[in-house]
Amino acid sequence: MSPNPHVAIVGATGAVGAEMIQTLERRRFPAGRLTLLASARSAGKSLKFRGEPHPVQELKPDSFRGIDIALFSAGGGISREFAPRAAADGCVVVDNSSAFRMDDRVPLVVPEINAADIAAHAGIIANPNCTTAITLMALYPLHRAFGVRRIFASSYQAVSGTGARAIEELRRQVAQIVAGQPVTREVYPHQIAFNVLPHVDSFLPTGYTKEEMKMQNEGRKIMHHPSFRASVTCVRVPVYRAHSIAVSAEFDKPVSLDAARAALQGAPGLAIVDCPEKSEYPMPLFVAEKYDCEIGRLRLDCALDNGLCFWVAGDQLLKGAALNAVQIAEELLRLPR
Amino acid sequence: MSPNPHVAIVGATGAVGAEMIQTLERRRFPAGRLTLLASARSAGKSLKFRGEPHPVQELKPDSFRGIDIALFSAGGGISREFAPRAAADGCVVVDNSSAFRMDDRVPLVVPEINAADIAAHAGIIANPNCTTAITLMALYPLHRAFGVRRIFASSYQAVSGTGARAIEELRRQVAQIVAGQPVTREVYPHQIAFNVLPHVDSFLPTGYTKEEMKMQNEGRKIMHHPSFRASVTCVRVPVYRAHSIAVSAEFDKPVSLDAARAALQGAPGLAIVDCPEKSEYPMPLFVAEKYDCEIGRLRLDCALDNGLCFWVAGDQLLKGAALNAVQIAEELLRLPR
Repeated sequence: MSPNPHVAIVGATGAVGAEMIQTLERRRFPAGRLTLLASARSAGKSLKFRGEPHPVQELKPDSFRGIDIALFSAGGGISREFAPRAAADGCVVVDNSSAFRMDDRVPLVVPEINAADIAAHAGIIANPNCTTAITLMALYPLHRAFGVRRIFASSYQAVSGTGARAIEELRRQVAQIVAGQPVTREVYPHQIAFNVLPHVDSFLPTGYTKEEMKMQNEGRKIMHHPSFRASVTCVRVPVYRAHSIAVSAEFDKPVSLDAARAALQGAPGLAIVDCPEKSEYPMPLFVAEKYDCEIGRLRLDCALDNGLCFWVAGDQLLKGAALNAVQIAEELLRLPR
Repeated sequence: MSPNPHVAIVGATGAVGAEMIQTLERRRFPAGRLTLLASARSAGKSLKFRGEPHPVQELKPDSFRGIDIALFSAGGGISREFAPRAAADGCVVVDNSSAFRMDDRVPLVVPEINAADIAAHAGIIANPNCTTAITLMALYPLHRAFGVRRIFASSYQAVSGTGARAIEELRRQVAQIVAGQPVTREVYPHQIAFNVLPHVDSFLPTGYTKEEMKMQNEGRKIMHHPSFRASVTCVRVPVYRAHSIAVSAEFDKPVSLDAARAALQGAPGLAIVDCPEKSEYPMPLFVAEKYDCEIGRLRLDCALDNGLCFWVAGDQLLKGAALNAVQIAEELLRLPR
């Protein structure tokens, strides 16, 4: 890998794409060149990177010739179609979709947890589900200390996880309600303003959604923990940005609050915000646009014998998507040539 | 008890008080007279009952002479001060505050679950916590079928649970944001518009809030199940009305979806709204102003061996407060004289 790689962003005009451009810039990623790719509909637009306008080009099968690293965030269909072609052209793909996450040949990586898995890539590396990544940022340090057996979790997911059109839908519905107008829907099956929807992603025959099962499936792969169990309810809430997750976690070893805090204290990418008597705890409004995830409301779980209950929040466009992808790209630069 | 009792509402001008008046009227409660009581600040106002204006009177120690049933919803302090006086004057108090719920001499009642406990009252009967009542409406039929051991739950609680001022706070903050003005706070410690707060009621030394522990403490008393365990995270969400709760429940006996549905089917006060493939599940926006609680998202829990995961929503001003209180009053009329 060149020390100044030619980077492409696929889905550059989407909510995550915009964050990818900004994150590359803010973290001073040493890209030699940046190519922005999107559907024909968005081609011709121009986006700024390091103060310079960059044209958005139409994504085509031969778009990846000469590209070193491609960050994909344009949905599973685009990834399935174009990521293998990009890899065949010698480009390393960091894919934000769910298309390849459970593929045995594809590392699924949260760099703070399993950066070492990246070395085994064969051209594609997967970025995990946003809710899973944020939860694991808090859970993994506790797992290392106590050995997690299973978790029970409920999410509070922001509309930006669905994309730019969902942000617009919440904004429009709120304006309609304030103006006393009828509420219109385009993205979600029900009004999201002043409502919550226990429905993220599509339903499986078991009654869980795909999103809900990602916690267990992706968590097992990322933590190298094949017996990890996770029962999750994923819920969309009328918040613009950042996901929150309430977790009860059962461990193999006895837990204590002091040992738990010690385990969390030095964890990279995680801040402890836990002073409830001063009303200090993580909240989506205040974790939005931050790189670090935040854990708080830490307590011994009253319904588990070796359990901890906690609350974690993180910006799902950053740690749940763009930041994690850029961190993987940074790790790629550190691989021996 | 007279078949046409003289009823008083204490806290008549509050969010729950207004629902109590309306619920008495809609359920054709055979009140011979209705007396509305509130603080000196609200005295002099007039509220309609059965089409007739009723003056709001100032609550005083002698307000309960001649009253048969008093529905209290004016906070724990008022209940502690006035409920025992009312009872001493021969009035039966149905108290919506937490003041007497855990008192051994005070029945704590959800009529669909433990109406029989009412007969043992000594002048005061307690209405349970709203989140607890709504959760138990779904859990109790499953407990009867399978024997619940413990639950892990997370709530999505509407601002009206805090009262009329909190409804106004959410409305004001949304209007401020739409108008591009700075957001002001009076009720909650942080902005609630487009945010979620993992903070309902005050914090205990264990790290749980009082609200969170009500599920276990009140659940044990209502279900007559002293070993019931409940680990809960209570979260305020920007929803005006109706609470929702995500639950993982572990049972003594093996569970099946068919047996669970059969147990829920005939449960009084509960509707099954569970057709996820048609995007049908309970939501606060649509359960608001309904008497019945709604259960959906029912599935075998993937992290428990005898477990069910489900989602329940209910109007916390009705089943969580006013309706439950009026139902208790209805039961009082059925007691043998």
